[in-house]
Amino acid sequence: MKTDIEISQSADLVNINDIASQLNIGINEYEPYGKYKAKLNLPFKGEKNGKLILVTSINPTAAGEGKTTLTIGLGDAFHRINQSCAIALREPSLGPVMGIKGGATGGGYSQVAPMEDINLFFTGDFPAITEAHDTLSALIDNHIHHGNKLNIDPRTITWKRVVDINDRELRKVVIGLGGRTSGVPREDGFDITVASEIMAVLCLSEDLADLKNKLGKILIGYNYDREPVTVNDLGVTGALALLLKDAIKPNLVQTLEHTPAFIHGGPFANIAHGCNSILATKAAMQHADYAITEAGFGADLGGEKFLDITSKKLGHRPDAIVIVATVRALKLNGGVNKNDLDEENVDALLAGAKNLGRHIANMKQYNKPVVVAINEFSSDTEKEINALNDYITKQGVKPFNTTVWENGGAGATDLANELVKLCENNDEFKPLYEDDDEFMVKLESIVTKIYHGKNVVLSAKAKRQLKTMEKYGWDKLPICVAKTQYSFSDDAKQLGAPEDFTINVSELQPKLGAGFIVALTGKILTMPGLPSHPAALNMDIDNDGKITGLF
Amino acid sequence: MKTDIEISQSADLVNINDIASQLNIGINEYEPYGKYKAKLNLPFKGEKNGKLILVTSINPTAAGEGKTTLTIGLGDAFHRINQSCAIALREPSLGPVMGIKGGATGGGYSQVAPMEDINLFFTGDFPAITEAHDTLSALIDNHIHHGNKLNIDPRTITWKRVVDINDRELRKVVIGLGGRTSGVPREDGFDITVASEIMAVLCLSEDLADLKNKLGKILIGYNYDREPVTVNDLGVTGALALLLKDAIKPNLVQTLEHTPAFIHGGPFANIAHGCNSILATKAAMQHADYAITEAGFGADLGGEKFLDITSKKLGHRPDAIVIVATVRALKLNGGVNKNDLDEENVDALLAGAKNLGRHIANMKQYNKPVVVAINEFSSDTEKEINALNDYITKQGVKPFNTTVWENGGAGATDLANELVKLCENNDEFKPLYEDDDEFMVKLESIVTKIYHGKNVVLSAKAKRQLKTMEKYGWDKLPICVAKTQYSFSDDAKQLGAPEDFTINVSELQPKLGAGFIVALTGKILTMPGLPSHPAALNMDIDNDGKITGLF
Repeated sequence: MKTDIEISQSADLVNINDIASQLNIGINEYEPYGKYKAKLNLPFKGEKNGKLILVTSINPTAAGEGKTTLTIGLGDAFHRINQSCAIALREPSLGPVMGIKGGATGGGYSQVAPMEDINLFFTGDFPAITEAHDTLSALIDNHIHHGNKLNIDPRTITWKRVVDINDRELRKVVIGLGGRTSGVPREDGFDITVASEIMAVLCLSEDLADLKNKLGKILIGYNYDREPVTVNDLGVTGALALLLKDAIKPNLVQTLEHTPAFIHGGPFANIAHGCNSILATKAAMQHADYAITEAGFGADLGGEKFLDITSKKLGHRPDAIVIVATVRALKLNGGVNKNDLDEENVDALLAGAKNLGRHIANMKQYNKPVVVAINEFSSDTEKEINALNDYITKQGVKPFNTTVWENGGAGATDLANELVKLCENNDEFKPLYEDDDEFMVKLESIVTKIYHGKNVVLSAKAKRQLKTMEKYGWDKLPICVAKTQYSFSDDAKQLGAPEDFTINVSELQPKLGAGFIVALTGKILTMPGLPSHPAALNMDIDNDGKITGLF
Repeated sequence: MKTDIEISQSADLVNINDIASQLNIGINEYEPYGKYKAKLNLPFKGEKNGKLILVTSINPTAAGEGKTTLTIGLGDAFHRINQSCAIALREPSLGPVMGIKGGATGGGYSQVAPMEDINLFFTGDFPAITEAHDTLSALIDNHIHHGNKLNIDPRTITWKRVVDINDRELRKVVIGLGGRTSGVPREDGFDITVASEIMAVLCLSEDLADLKNKLGKILIGYNYDREPVTVNDLGVTGALALLLKDAIKPNLVQTLEHTPAFIHGGPFANIAHGCNSILATKAAMQHADYAITEAGFGADLGGEKFLDITSKKLGHRPDAIVIVATVRALKLNGGVNKNDLDEENVDALLAGAKNLGRHIANMKQYNKPVVVAINEFSSDTEKEINALNDYITKQGVKPFNTTVWENGGAGATDLANELVKLCENNDEFKPLYEDDDEFMVKLESIVTKIYHGKNVVLSAKAKRQLKTMEKYGWDKLPICVAKTQYSFSDDAKQLGAPEDFTINVSELQPKLGAGFIVALTGKILTMPGLPSHPAALNMDIDNDGKITGLF
């Protein structure tokens, strides 16, 4: 059996000019980056108003759900049923590529390409975000070093540094050592680039003007009078925007079946808002009749955030929602050991299916059509598939058995046909909360209606932070919860559909540029670590440039 | 008068395909990055064996020498006299762009373009080098965290981290704080990316195989038995090479007069070896009859290193050497205050000209033809120009008055004509030292024959390091001195042609991948700081994407 990278390397891609012309994007409306990549110029010229389909999933497990693979295969399926369609996805982060995850460009016959490029820097967006972030960090410390005219209290600086690597060693550091010519000693830390507020700003910006507006509002800390200090106060908004001049343009590539895909931005859904840029989604909607976008991790994280934050800023709610599930992942949720997943176990499957059931009920709350895509694996038995189909049907939604890994778009045409019908609905979207609600009302809505926890408890620190937020009116921003992706609760080990748990918020972080408040729960870390045998150890490139070990 | 960026923005560039075809580079031998940039595929197909011209200069001053501008204008001059010519230059570092220097793409009518792109990430080479460097750092600490099979002594790790920003706050840091899940606490520090050994490795690699070979040999520290530990020992050579798969390909752009320019790699000459990649120089020589390359800072730094390190690895010594000087910079060297440079002062000029005189004598030691290019400024008086011409002639070399800033290639055609003649020489190149010489003999050669210091003194630490190097045979590598660019001595304030000084070596760093030993002298820092009013404060981009404040 061919590996993902072998399938990708043997694929027959068409020139990116052909992909652009498929979407009626004129030759002067984009810049090619080599033969198979392009950046779309702003503003777009496309005038369509395509339907929007959101792909989300059950809680992820080590078994893999194949959400990205399904999203790509679904786009190809739309093409196979002769519908104009474009996919909008996030860019992979190098941290996980070098760590556990490998690439993030789909799998089997449902991939975006060229995978080696997309997984490795792509068109340079993440490096630009990293550079902009750390340039701001350097400018802050430089300001303090040279007299501190803004009277910034170094102990209150909330703007950390970032690298696009899993580097636990940099989580907590002391900087500015080495005497008076080398800055002012203080505590600091590094996050992974995907958690940078600049990543969120870029993903939520409508255009260059909006980008500058958002960058300028970023809170970097407080002065000695406890007043907020922003990027605008520092006077470096223009310089940061300059560094993002190309990064803000959506990237265009193709699937192995030549379906156009806009791949742009890449916040994680556990520590950030977890969706590709609204510019990429807009590009898809303005140039195709159907735009398919994916939200990170489970529907409790990326899904909820897309529905309550991103789609609001996008100005368009999803016309239909697809929840991806696999027999294997549900069996894991039902208590099966990772090594026993190949054995048929209907009981465990049905026990674990409660995780899916809850996500279905959650998504239905938003009053838009919901379907489930079962991403089939060769180890799934007929009994299991039938039992899962029955279970899903009982939840009041339709199940679709898909085989996109093996068959590309042909493995999801039924689902595509159904979605064409579902997208005709005029149901009124019901948000989970209104931004104007009290902060704790909003937070409790997420905790009780999406996670189904008993309650939420703020730490003493978070309570103090809430007071500051109320003082400045920041509590009227939407909430972006940072939480483990593995459980509805804030404890990664509680799989399935746990109940009666408490969500513990350790910290509230005002992201005034992005326009939301991050609530850190449980032991969530904004800088991952590498495993004992990182994927990097298996990677190689031969003397002719052929790559192995990316997957 | 138009600014550099205004001149650049109003220039009429031709498509990069036209630049490639000017050099007989076929359409499948490169990948365009937009309309005006391309990356050349490896291996090159060009079969020329062009002459090589090295452009170097007097010690730089705040007055500016315009070495890059002269190099670009000289390339254009070769075109104007109908000679096939390509320029090879370094890529600008974002640190200085955001700090004092602004852009690094020439000036006036002698610029490479598009300057906004070249100055800001360009085709992503520096981000790739930064990422590869810091991925290695993360992998080292991850190895130690997960059991330290290689028995690495964390106190001996010589592999620091890098960012491509001037961030003095990161010079000395303590990392790994936060308890047992966040790594092992230890001292560390950040250099600027241009000082990364991976930058040097990339610039000195002949191809992908050589890149991997060099990456694998990089020394990262020692184990508890005081034995060296390399990248190969860690098993991550392939992963690092993968991250550099595109960065190793030379970039092709054009001057405002459409002369081809390969811009690739960018080590500083004060803290690293200071020359563009040998692949870029090779690309220029294999596709044009004349290749013009620039070495960083003065002839004591970039010049000496190009002659004794880079050109040896390139396998081709320069056929002629151009030393750039300006009346203003020499007056500064002669003691004139920076604010009084507009006033005629022949005495100070002649006093400062001793700096030029010494560089001329130094370069003549290599037994290749030397000429001086006087880069004229509007404030230069006739008396000053005449006096300087006389001085230069007395040193036994020809002076050429050039006006490339104002006139582009037309301002240096006499110089170009002379260089065509000079390049016909068959003089045998005389190296300053042989790699096989004793380490201290090599170091003293540089100090006495190039800097004209009295002697060189190693610190106790450097002496210990030399013993280790002798034990492993590393002392047979060439020496790359890290020294202030402002003076022949290791004291930035000793301008002109100081004598009888001692060079103090604080540390010796074995760069086994790059293949040289760095000798740190005086107070040289491998991480610069930003000034009190960084250039970043003046930068902006308007809502249509038009950039201001880059210069």
